[in-house]
Amino acid sequence: MATTSPPLTRPSLLDAHALIQPYIHLTPVLTNSTLNTLASSPSPSPSSPSASRPAHPTIRFHFKCENLQRIGAFKARGAFHALLRLKSSPTFTPSAGVVTHSSGNHAQALALAARTFSIPAHIVMPSISTPSKIAATAGYGARIIPSGSTSTEREAVVTEVIKETGAALIPPYDHADIILGQGTAGLELQAQVTPTRLDAIIAPCGGGGLLSGTALSCEGTGIKVFGAEPEFEGADDARRAYYSETGERIASVKTLTIADGLRTPVGAIPWSIIYERRLVAGMYAVTEDQIKAAMRLVYERMKIVVEPSAVVGLAVALYNEEFRAMVEKEGGEKGWDIGVIFTGGNVSLDALGKLFAA
Amino acid sequence: MATTSPPLTRPSLLDAHALIQPYIHLTPVLTNSTLNTLASSPSPSPSSPSASRPAHPTIRFHFKCENLQRIGAFKARGAFHALLRLKSSPTFTPSAGVVTHSSGNHAQALALAARTFSIPAHIVMPSISTPSKIAATAGYGARIIPSGSTSTEREAVVTEVIKETGAALIPPYDHADIILGQGTAGLELQAQVTPTRLDAIIAPCGGGGLLSGTALSCEGTGIKVFGAEPEFEGADDARRAYYSETGERIASVKTLTIADGLRTPVGAIPWSIIYERRLVAGMYAVTEDQIKAAMRLVYERMKIVVEPSAVVGLAVALYNEEFRAMVEKEGGEKGWDIGVIFTGGNVSLDALGKLFAA
Repeated sequence: MATTSPPLTRPSLLDAHALIQPYIHLTPVLTNSTLNTLASSPSPSPSSPSASRPAHPTIRFHFKCENLQRIGAFKARGAFHALLRLKSSPTFTPSAGVVTHSSGNHAQALALAARTFSIPAHIVMPSISTPSKIAATAGYGARIIPSGSTSTEREAVVTEVIKETGAALIPPYDHADIILGQGTAGLELQAQVTPTRLDAIIAPCGGGGLLSGTALSCEGTGIKVFGAEPEFEGADDARRAYYSETGERIASVKTLTIADGLRTPVGAIPWSIIYERRLVAGMYAVTEDQIKAAMRLVYERMKIVVEPSAVVGLAVALYNEEFRAMVEKEGGEKGWDIGVIFTGGNVSLDALGKLFAA
Repeated sequence: MATTSPPLTRPSLLDAHALIQPYIHLTPVLTNSTLNTLASSPSPSPSSPSASRPAHPTIRFHFKCENLQRIGAFKARGAFHALLRLKSSPTFTPSAGVVTHSSGNHAQALALAARTFSIPAHIVMPSISTPSKIAATAGYGARIIPSGSTSTEREAVVTEVIKETGAALIPPYDHADIILGQGTAGLELQAQVTPTRLDAIIAPCGGGGLLSGTALSCEGTGIKVFGAEPEFEGADDARRAYYSETGERIASVKTLTIADGLRTPVGAIPWSIIYERRLVAGMYAVTEDQIKAAMRLVYERMKIVVEPSAVVGLAVALYNEEFRAMVEKEGGEKGWDIGVIFTGGNVSLDALGKLFAA
């Protein structure tokens, strides 16, 4: 991308929010007393069996519902922000359009943002992507270019598209404008729970755009930010790197966790915020069963549709004994008000059926 | 029940609303432009194949989300109203408690209302009821009494419980206080879409408590009320009776429609409002596939959890060609603002899985 991005700070987030506000939904923040009670009881099943004395924290949840965001996920924030900034760049040729590769929510988000400004969007999608996601992206008027599924194969196709069309690349997470867009969810969440001051926010971590943006939104506020990942087949790359001796980012991950939005390794710019600038206070991981149990609670108790990736933060608060013990210790009797970002709701009923049919 | 009920009129509904307001949620009314567009296009699949020229109405939806009501369904309204009125009756002995038979949402609703006022609740539930529903009802502190599954078997157990305990019977729909409670959803819906005046409201019809209550809420307002039923295995008993020569209520139905809340035949008092007082302007039925298609749209586009019974009204507006032709004719170019009551969201992910797994 040809733009010069603003510094990665909380004030830049405020500017980003002002810029994208006309184009995104102010999604609601919901509470739920049943989930508070469950989280504030020791060891709700399916908990880690290793804990000798289950932790007993006091937790009040504030759920930021980005599953109700446009295109059904927070990705609309980053895509609108990146495109609005790009549009104001003198080197950008609108008729050449924009290009990205994504099999998921970023594809739809960029397609929507591009259509909004009548800019052509070229989206490189692996041929094995879910047909409904390809259809949804095409439905926003984007041109879909099929590719192989490895990142080398995808990137080769993107390079070709750029050569052909002169389109500007808008990557899914490893870019300052994207990070600043995603972080606006954290800003809104803080404002929406006033006058309560949140003690913490938990955000899932895939490429790290949302987590690092959220971390920026809390800088200097006293609110602690935590990252949540699936542990299946090493999907917890950021957690492993975070607690490693070298602190070196793990650049390659191959996992088929059900939290399909979190299969990507964390990007370099997000990592610099999460780890090097120490703006994330801890990383936690959960099992596939814990993700499914959290989904079940959200569907059956809150009656809203969330995709598996969306509930990984809730699963940490409910089932990760290390996290829970930390909240018990730091929150004491009063406990903690925890913001949890539900990142998206893009799951088909067929996919749900496969996940939960006996 | 020993109470003398108020007349079945709109003013009585206003009183009922004032009475129950502290105990129920003011559920949101949502709109959705994708669903408006779909409903306002000719013949969205899976439409009736018989239509020669598919109807082309203009429809703007206003969804009253009783799936977000307490206990996850509108039934909380009737149960609280009936219990509040019963409590004020001099012949009621609170310690003797209340009794009903239900395998569904009324059981949970009555259990919650009874617990709220520290009154014992005896709930007769067929042994074959879904374990999660039995557990949920017991979770509200009710005493569960198992029974056979036919209505004769259930009623025999209820009679026994009454003999034993002196409990007062609160039936699920065929009672004035229940009807007045359910009708408050219609009142709220009208107030929430101000200043737009609704042209019509569609409500599902099982026992008919909600449909008849909704009809009362619209009396004298100019808003037309329509009933929606599944057609599977004769579940459209009210529709068949409505258009029969004699207009006689069909008192027995045996259907296993996926819309499990609508398997009951319409009750006598609801029928007197729906048909004899002509407060319902028409009855329409939809297929199982149309119900599933409507569910899919609500999950994937609105991101909220609804049970199959909840979307039968939406399915009528999207797929019933007779209904659509009528809206096209009566609504003309301007079209209609239609209130649709989403009745409940009590479906387990396992049940969803079975419905939608390939």
